[in-house]
Order: sequence, then structure tokens, then C-alpha cells
Amino acid sequence: MKLTKKLYESTKDIWDTYYKHPFVVGLSNGSLDIDKFKFFMIQDYLYLLEYAKVFALGVAKATSEKNMRKFSSVLNSVLNEEMEIHKSYMKRLGIKESDIENAKPSIVNTSYTNYMLQIGYSKGELEILVSILACSWSYKEIGERLSKDKSMLDHKLYGEWIKGYSSDEYIKSNEEIMELVDELGKDITEEHFDVLKDIFINCSRYEYMFWDMSYKKEMFYIC
Amino acid sequence: MKLTKKLYESTKDIWDTYYKHPFVVGLSNGSLDIDKFKFFMIQDYLYLLEYAKVFALGVAKATSEKNMRKFSSVLNSVLNEEMEIHKSYMKRLGIKESDIENAKPSIVNTSYTNYMLQIGYSKGELEILVSILACSWSYKEIGERLSKDKSMLDHKLYGEWIKGYSSDEYIKSNEEIMELVDELGKDITEEHFDVLKDIFINCSRYEYMFWDMSYKKEMFYIC
Amino acid sequence: MKLTKKLYESTKDIWDTYYKHPFVVGLSNGSLDIDKFKFFMIQDYLYLLEYAKVFALGVAKATSEKNMRKFSSVLNSVLNEEMEIHKSYMKRLGIKESDIENAKPSIVNTSYTNYMLQIGYSKGELEILVSILACSWSYKEIGERLSKDKSMLDHKLYGEWIKGYSSDEYIKSNEEIMELVDELGKDITEEHFDVLKDIFINCSRYEYMFWDMSYKKEMFYIC
Amino acid sequence: MKLTKKLYESTKDIWDTYYKHPFVVGLSNGSLDIDKFKFFMIQDYLYLLEYAKVFALGVAKATSEKNMRKFSSVLNSVLNEEMEIHKSYMKRLGIKESDIENAKPSIVNTSYTNYMLQIGYSKGELEILVSILACSWSYKEIGERLSKDKSMLDHKLYGEWIKGYSSDEYIKSNEEIMELVDELGKDITEEHFDVLKDIFINCSRYEYMFWDMSYKKEMFYIC
Repeated sequence: MKLTKKLYESTKDIWDTYYKHPFVVGLSNGSLDIDKFKFFMIQDYLYLLEYAKVFALGVAKATSEKNMRKFSSVLNSVLNEEMEIHKSYMKRLGIKESDIENAKPSIVNTSYTNYMLQIGYSKGELEILVSILACSWSYKEIGERLSKDKSMLDHKLYGEWIKGYSSDEYIKSNEEIMELVDELGKDITEEHFDVLKDIFINCSRYEYMFWDMSYKKEMFYIC
Repeated sequence: MKLTKKLYESTKDIWDTYYKHPFVVGLSNGSLDIDKFKFFMIQDYLYLLEYAKVFALGVAKATSEKNMRKFSSVLNSVLNEEMEIHKSYMKRLGIKESDIENAKPSIVNTSYTNYMLQIGYSKGELEILVSILACSWSYKEIGERLSKDKSMLDHKLYGEWIKGYSSDEYIKSNEEIMELVDELGKDITEEHFDVLKDIFINCSRYEYMFWDMSYKKEMFYIC
Repeated sequence: MKLTKKLYESTKDIWDTYYKHPFVVGLSNGSLDIDKFKFFMIQDYLYLLEYAKVFALGVAKATSEKNMRKFSSVLNSVLNEEMEIHKSYMKRLGIKESDIENAKPSIVNTSYTNYMLQIGYSKGELEILVSILACSWSYKEIGERLSKDKSMLDHKLYGEWIKGYSSDEYIKSNEEIMELVDELGKDITEEHFDVLKDIFINCSRYEYMFWDMSYKKEMFYIC
Repeated sequence: MKLTKKLYESTKDIWDTYYKHPFVVGLSNGSLDIDKFKFFMIQDYLYLLEYAKVFALGVAKATSEKNMRKFSSVLNSVLNEEMEIHKSYMKRLGIKESDIENAKPSIVNTSYTNYMLQIGYSKGELEILVSILACSWSYKEIGERLSKDKSMLDHKLYGEWIKGYSSDEYIKSNEEIMELVDELGKDITEEHFDVLKDIFINCSRYEYMFWDMSYKKEMFYIC
């Protein structure tokens, strides 16, 4: 079985909670409070900066020139495409540049990005790819699901987001990551798989926590 | 003003929540559910292994032989004293070795240790020390507060824990860390302080989350 | 005084040896043995792969989005321009792809790139830039000097090399690195300068050793 | 075949040059110029500080508690035994503390330690062990060979050095490293072995270069 398929099976129950989460449901039918979405967009912008760094660490850890170029190519799309789209989107939503500059990552955001970066510094290229995969892949899944309601594609606030993550370019860029994971993961030992599975489960958990933190506009919580 | 004092002032409101948290209150009067404490002990054991690695990264990042020796000396006390005490304590609590070997860190535990390790890999010795300080120092504060109720020092279950973190050796070892923080932090720029403050705030938040996760015996949460 | 100027003064005596070295002299008048140049080109190709990784580590260590983009932009020019030029150049020189794939870095090459990478992993963005600067800047100096003899610009074997490193694009890309070094190095302490100076001296030494190793086609030496 | 045996076979020709090198020959019969030995001792002291950091990185990268303790235990013997012996030895040789404090590592020393540190930061525990092994093991080989001439064990200048590296403690500590290498290297792929072999060859080359640099009291060389 392909590594991506094995990884997916180990987190299916977590991924299923994404689609039912009020933030994603709100995106799917347009009922999401705009302030929650703005909070999400700013946090996601801060996230993307660190996410890009993880790809940069992938360049540094790559074991072949071919893989270096792949990591570098995604680094470029994150920095120059995904982030630029975010910027123009945030502008249209009325988020000021100063809002972004003054923003700090929430504790959930910090936890997620530092986890990936720690793997980036201390582990190899396959671990890095797997740490990246939960975000890349699950956004594609969510984008595709939400895009089935064609009326939402033109939604004034959320249509652009849904179109972005269900676009051919995004699907293709996620597929390139998945193919590289499957290629590098072809002959790994069961012991190695267990390490990768833990990474994938943790990042899948962070994905849930990121949706949940955004819905609650939560920088930190004291119960 | 000393760096440790400035750091403390930036997190006083978070630290005050520790003393009121039901886990710590339960430790202070013996009412804490033993299962919660066992969960905490196992998670803390896994935590200490990673915490020791942060000190090891401090050895690698130290800018003087003197500081190398200081980091190395705390690494030794964590590995050979603090962890050994944990082991014998866990044995008395009826925690089996297999429980420990099979245990996985909770998502809060993972977040905290990976945050410190990421700083260990990517930053310098002062950042490493500050990331360590919230744990080391707040345990001393809690240990001292709880030890004021002398009857608790002999508490069958929690007396040993309270004695450990209010002992002269522990206080001295924490003081050595604080002195090194103040020494290295003597002439830092305001910009550098802001970086260190963010680290200290984040780790202080993780300390709260660790108590809270232990109280709820929570590996992960779906709201 | 600007940081780049202070750094240059600390290594002027080493840099002066480059221009007199038989490899560079041979490039300047076309007398260089083609086999020495081929050896150099293959080693330099392996060098560039690691050099690109140092820029990738710069992306990961950058303290602002602006700096991330700068490191990322040079990473792209190294991977997609400088290396592509190398590849077509090597082809014309009759170097086979299998020669490149089977090539191993010499001990001097290994020493130089691992030194920069170690700084990339363990230090900050300014240290990384300074470690990169000796290569980037001294090639510009050599390119400019050699390009003064206009007849050499059309030299069948070495003209393209001289044109590349005296081109407007190359000069501009080196200037961007120098400007960033001066900007980040504006208010550093004397202690910090000493660290940077050591890095610049070491890399300037490696530059000399790289020319010398190439001239001797030396993978390793037993005296 | 055990990994250590396979590694040894890949570098036998390099190791054979150690025993014939004038520095080692001079140690073996007492004819070595004392100034060369002093230069060596100071450089070796600087080397040991970085060598200790590589073990610290081994603690951070260890995949089990048992291995953490092994790395930590060697870190301690380097910092607290090997370096203390160096210090008292240097004192007897008339090397002043200020000589040590002002000393800078030679370019060969810098190359060797940064190579190991780079592996420490970017690779796993087995790579770290193999990078350490060439130094640890070859000193044992040299110590044993030189100790066969019993008269040299009491040599006023070099007897202590020979006794140290042929002592039971030193042999045991080297054996522990070798056993861990063989244990972790039991079922590695041929591809993984090739990576480890390159590390072992490079470090074996650096060992030769370290002896040669010491004999020439060479901080840097311009041919």
C-alpha cells in the first residue's frame, strides 16, 4: 500500500471531524461570522511564513538535486503565489497591513509551526514532507468538498477561498507532494513508518486545533 | 532591572493561574485524584527526556567553556537525578515499566517540548535558557508554596513531590539557571528582550496547559 | 564604517593571493590547463548544490518576511540560473552527466560547504550572509579584473566564465547580498563583529584553498 | 560483517599513514619537537570542546533513553576527564592559561570540527557516532602501538599522553562507542552504509590532516 494511503487510514477519524467543524461548515454554506474568518486569515498568514520555512529546511535536507528543486519550487509557490493571494484577499476583507504586522501567532499556531520546524531541523526529507502533508492535503480535501456546491464558488466572502483550494494548480501542487512522499516512502521499515505515522497524526490534530482556535478567535485559553 | 524579573512581570497573570488550577490545588491539600497524578507523572517523564535534550542543545550552543559545563551539569541532574527520582516514585505509585514504554506524549506535551527543541536547534544559548526557565522556576514557586503546609510534606502520595521541588538542591539548581539568564541578559537590546519575552510567555502558557491536560487526562481533545 | 568594508580589510591579504594564484592567472590569460578547469567546474557544481542549501537555511533563519524573500530569491538564481549555466557550460567542455553524478567533493570542498552549513544550522541570518559573502564577492572581484582584458571575453574556453562573473546580473545579485549584510550589520557590538570576522576570514581561506585544490586536481593530499 | 569492520576496511590505507607520519613517529621515540607538541595540545584542547558538542548533539538526536545516557556519559568523560587531563598536562608543559584563551583553531581544526557539528545538527545518531569514531578509535590504535615500547611510557614529555590513550579506561570508552555503532548499524541498507562510509573516510582524512597540521604548526597555508 502507498505510504500516503497508510497515513490517511491512521488519521481518518481526525480528518472526519474537520468537515463537521462549525468553521468549515460555516465556510461551506456562507454562514461563518466574518470576524472569525478574518482572525483565521491573519493567523493563516503567519502560519504560511513558517510553513515556507519548513520547505526551505526541506531544500537543506534534500538528498538529491531533483528533490532540492521540488522543495524549492513549492517554497516559491507558497511565498510568491499563496501568500500574495492571501494579501490581496485580506485587503478586500478590510484587514489593514498594520493588523498583520502587529499580529502574533496564537498558541495553537505557534505549536503547529514549531512542531514542523523542529522536524525540519532535526529530521530528514521524508519526515519533513509528511509534516507538511496534513495541511496541504486536507485543504485540498476541504476545497474539493466545498466546491461541489457551485453556488458557493461565487460567494462574496468565501468563494475565492474555496476556488483557491479546489483549483487545478492547488490540486497539482498537492499531488506533487504526495507523489514525492510515496516515492521516498516506498521501501521504508515498519519502524520508520511508525515515526512518520506519529508525525502525520500530530499534524492532523493541529489541523483540527487550527480550525477550532479560529472559530473561537482564541489566542490562548484559560479553562 | 534583571532579565528574570522583567520576564516574570510579563507573565505574572499566567503564573497566578497555576496556583488556582484544580490540579495544583489538589496537590496542595491532597484531594487530587491519584489517576490524574499518575497520568501527570508518565507525561512528565516523557517531558523530562525532551527537556534533557534541550539542555544538551544548550551544551552545543554555549559560547564559552564555562557555560558548556553549566548546561552539561544540569543535563546530568535531569538525566541522573530528577529522572531517577521519577522512576522510583512511579514504581511506588504502581506504574509499570511497560506503561511508561508504551506511553505516548499528549498533544500538549508534544507542543511544549517541540517548541523548546525548535528554539534549541535554531537559536542561541540565552533563548534556550529562557525556554527552560518557565518550567524550572515555576516548579520551584509551586514547590515552595505547597511546602508551607508542613503536614503535606509527609503526604503518602504527594509529599515526595512537594519535598523534591522545595528541596535545597532543586532551589539551588534553579537559581543557577536564573543567574546565568541574568548574566547573559545583562546588556541585551530591547529588540532582543522582545524575542525572549515571547519565548517566556509561550512556555508559561504551556506550563498552564500541561497542568490542565493532566487534570483532564487529555491526550487530545475534540470539542 | 560599513560592515562589508570592515570585513574586507580583515582579509585583504588573503584576497590578494587569489589574483596571483596560478589558477586565476591561467584563467586571465587563457593558459590554464583545460583538465584543471574541468576538475574545477565539477567541484564547483557540487559546491553550488551545498551553497544553495546555505541560502535555504537563510530562508529558515530570516527574521523578517522581506529577508525571507531575499534569501529565497538568491536560492532561485543559484538553483535555476547559476547551475543551469554551469550545466550547459560543462556539456560544451565535454563533461558527461555521468562524470557529474559519480563525482565526489574533494576534502577542501567538503570542508568549505560543511563549514557554511554548520553556520546555517546553528547561527543567525547575519552569520549566514557573511559565510556566503566571501564566495559571492570575491568571484565578482575576480570576474571584474579578468574582464578588463576584452580579448579574454571571447576566449573559447574561459570567456563565458569571465563574462558570467562580470555580468550586470551577477554584480547586482552580489550587491544585494552586500547591502543586506550592511543593513543587518549596522549596529552590531564589537563582540558580534569578532564572530563575523572569524567567519569571513575562514571562508576567505577556503576560497584560496578551493583555487589551489582545483589547480592541483586534489581530492585529498598525503604530504 | 560488523559495521565497524566494514568502515575500517574502507579507510585502512589512510590509517596506515598515521603510524608513519613524523608527528606520530616522533611521539613514539621521543624525538618530537616540544613546540610541535605544544601546538598540538592547544589545538587539541580547542578540538575537544567542539568534539564534546558533537556528543551533546548525540544526546539531542538519540532515539532511546538508553542511547541518550550513553552519549551523555561520553560527553561527561570528555568534559570532565579528558579535558582536565589536558589542562594539567598543558600546565606541566608550560602552556599558560592565556595561551589557551587567546588561541584560535587552525583551518584544519575548524574544518574537522565543523564537519562533525554539521552532521550533528543535520543527521541522526548513527551518523554522529560514525563521525566521532575515527578520532576515538584511531587514538586507541596509536596509543596501543606506542605503548608497546615500555620505555616510552615513562617519557618525561610524551609518556603521559601514551599512557592516557592506551589506558583501560580509554580502551573501554572507545569500545562502548564501537559497540553502539555495531548495534545501531546491524541492519542498515547498502545506501545507508555508503553515507556512513563517506563520513568515516572524511573524518579519517581529517585525522591525518590534524597530525600534519600539528607537525607544521600550521594555522593556514599559502602554497
